[in-house]
Parts: sequence; C-alpha cells; structure tokens
Amino acid sequence: MKIARFSHDGAIAFGVVDDDDLVVLQGDPMFAGYEPTGERVPLADAKLLAPVIPRSKVVVLEDADDDGFLFTLKPNTTVIGPGDAIVLPAQSDDVVAHGELAAVIGRIAKNVTAADAGGVIFGYTVANNVLARDLQEEDAQSSRAMSFDSFCPLGPVIETELAAAPEVEGSVGGRVFQSGDAEQAMQRINAAVAFLSGIFTLLPGDVIVAGASGDEGALADGDTVTVEIAGVGALANPVRKA
Amino acid sequence: MKIARFSHDGAIAFGVVDDDDLVVLQGDPMFAGYEPTGERVPLADAKLLAPVIPRSKVVVLEDADDDGFLFTLKPNTTVIGPGDAIVLPAQSDDVVAHGELAAVIGRIAKNVTAADAGGVIFGYTVANNVLARDLQEEDAQSSRAMSFDSFCPLGPVIETELAAAPEVEGSVGGRVFQSGDAEQAMQRINAAVAFLSGIFTLLPGDVIVAGASGDEGALADGDTVTVEIAGVGALANPVRKA
Repeated sequence: MKIARFSHDGAIAFGVVDDDDLVVLQGDPMFAGYEPTGERVPLADAKLLAPVIPRSKVVVLEDADDDGFLFTLKPNTTVIGPGDAIVLPAQSDDVVAHGELAAVIGRIAKNVTAADAGGVIFGYTVANNVLARDLQEEDAQSSRAMSFDSFCPLGPVIETELAAAPEVEGSVGGRVFQSGDAEQAMQRINAAVAFLSGIFTLLPGDVIVAGASGDEGALADGDTVTVEIAGVGALANPVRKA
Repeated sequence: MKIARFSHDGAIAFGVVDDDDLVVLQGDPMFAGYEPTGERVPLADAKLLAPVIPRSKVVVLEDADDDGFLFTLKPNTTVIGPGDAIVLPAQSDDVVAHGELAAVIGRIAKNVTAADAGGVIFGYTVANNVLARDLQEEDAQSSRAMSFDSFCPLGPVIETELAAAPEVEGSVGGRVFQSGDAEQAMQRINAAVAFLSGIFTLLPGDVIVAGASGDEGALADGDTVTVEIAGVGALANPVRKA
C-alpha cells in the first residue's frame, strides 16, 4: 500500500494511492489507522508533501562495522517534499545528492532485535541525503554538512509492503550518477533498528536513512535531481541557490 | 520570570513560579502567552517536568573557532526532567555529566545576527550534558555518545529574564566536580544563534546547550548529580544502571 501526505484545496491530509486517485484517510495512518473519509482526490489535483514530518529523529547511517554503525542526526527542519527546492547554502561549494532507502518507524521501540525490526517499521520511502561535502571535510564530522534546511527530501510516498530488495537510481538533469542494487539496504536497516534502539527509544515517525554504496551527484543552481527506488517511487527536486 | 512545566493531579500544565506557588497558565507560554487560569498550585504539590520537550532540535555546541562552532544534535528522547533517573547504558564504562547553560528558542529564526539573538531566545534553563566519553572516543564523534535515553536532563525552570553572566556548579553526591563562571556562555549562545540560524531554521522549543569549560563528573549507579546555575536553579537527577 502506498501512503501519501498531500495538500488539496488548502487542506493537508493522508491518502492511499489507488490507481490515479488518493483515497483520503481520517488523520495520520501511523497513529489513526486506515479509516477512509469516503472522499477521493485525483492524484493529478493533489500536491504531494513529504510523507512524514519526523517529531523526534532522522537518523542517517554511515559506516558500519561488526560493532554497529556510525550515524548522524538530521534536524526535522531539513525535510522537504517532492518538487520542493533544495537550496544551496552560500557557505558551501560542494553540495551533493545521494539516493537512499529510508524506513519510517511505526511503533515505540527500545531494544528490538534485528529479527523483530520489521514489526516496528511502518514502511519505506525514498530519501535524498543531501550534504555539503566540503563542510563535512572541514568539520571532520557530518552534523553541519547534513543539517541545512532542505537537505532531506523525502517521498513521494511511504510503501508499507516493500518486500524485494529495491534498486536505487539517482540522476541530475537526466544524467545518472548513481545506479544499482541496494540489496543490502533492508537488512542494513533491520540491523540498524536493533543497534539504534539499544541507544534511544525509536518513536513513530522517526526516519532511518539507510546509507548505501554508489556515487554522489553534484548539485548546481537550476538542476533537477531525481532519486528513484523501484517499488517505492521517484522523488524529484529542483535545485537553487540561497 | 521563572516558568515551570509540571504535573499535578494527573494533568500537565505550565506555571509561573510565585514564591511557594505556581500560577497556572493556559497552554504553553511559548505559543499561548501568559494567560493565567486563575488556579494556583503549591510548588510542593507539583512534580516539575522538563520545562520544554523540543519538537525539532537540541543542539550541543562543541569547539568554537573564528569560523563558528562544531555541534552535535541530541534527539529529544534524551530529555528528562528534574528528579528523573539518568540511566547508564551497559555499552559504556565512562558516562560523565557536564553542567551547561541552555537557551530555549521562542521564535522562528533564520539568518539572525548575534546582536539580534536575544530577541529569539525565550529564556534559559540548566542542562546536564551527559555523555559516554569512551564511546565518543571510539566513534571519533559524539552522535552515539550523547544520544542515549535520559542523557539530557533539563530544568528545573526556564528563566525568561536572565541578565547577568551565570555561574555553573556541578556536583555528584555533594562533591563538586565543576565550579566557576560561565561568563562567556550567554555571548557564546548569541554567537551560536547567528551561526546555527545560518544553517537551519530555529523553531520555538529548540534548545541550544552552550557547552562550557570546566571538569566533568563521572557517574555511577546510585549517585545523585546536581547542576546549579545561579539565577536559574538547581537540577538534580539520580543515576542508575540500565
């Protein structure tokens, strides 16, 4: 099932994608279940928004070894939706995009095993982990580099029943910079749910960005960057200067 | 004015400290102003809670140089209130406490100057920046080390009119581990508001933990750690093993 968050006629709602329509839901399905309102909105008439605004954590996984993961937290002010502009900050000359599978947490979770991780994941979406590579090198850490407003496009939907290992393709202006399987991404996220829930309580709406191998795409004013994950969707965002 | 968030008779409210009473407010004064309900609750009958639950960011400042600051984000799941237990995770053998002045943001703010920073600060509280020193060294970064549940005690109140440079004293079981002026803390926070608001949008309820010079206090099961800042209050928390 594909869940979208969207605006239509000045109101924001959640809906289930049904062919060319959205079946409008009462409230946030992560908290309120899947109660339909009876209303349908044509997809073409809706502006899709980031499918979740995390209330607690956006965790970006970095290197993993046998002991676990390194990670960086992105503030929720980085989150934008499909079609929203990625804004290049003046203080960086090297902003790059990287397409990644992201899991959205659906339950309060502490000390979960990797085997049980699937039960606390609400679904999966596409994340574009935008970062300022030069600032990451300058700081020798990623907090600033990953924290600029607009540096976490999410969407276009949350797929609640993703089963197969997805493929990730990233492109800027149609030129592919990142392509190939993210076969390990779902297992990596399961391992990360176990690791992270041993540190902090995961809450509904938390987002775990898987990290992945593959090249990054340099972003410039006027570009449009697209990240597509088979089975989830394509997330496209224009790029502009601050 | 000292603002507390508290529970009493099973309800959570905000109040203004008035001698031995809390003047109960309608809603959160950061959003709803200072409208009293007419009710008063004796301070002795109230359980004080963390005065703010950040909805977006807890920023811990680290080293500063002429170019700005390094920082680490703590998830809001680290926040606990006065009297709540700091829980020592099994994966660390070296958890330490460090008392720090913290500013609570009161307005949406982007690209604010240091001179204007005071206008976006709602008030100041006491933070205990608890971290796992061994994991910080192992990871060569602070994300995991600072992110464990309970690692950000805040309180007991938000002082909205702090004018003088406060002094910070930290003690474990009455033994002082950190003492002395935090004269630079308020100016440091003003500079940080400028720096950080050039990266991301600051939102009401965001907390900026100043960092400070001074020693850290090692924590062990059964300890009680207290951080006191003159003019704001004393924040005491018991310590226990996971």
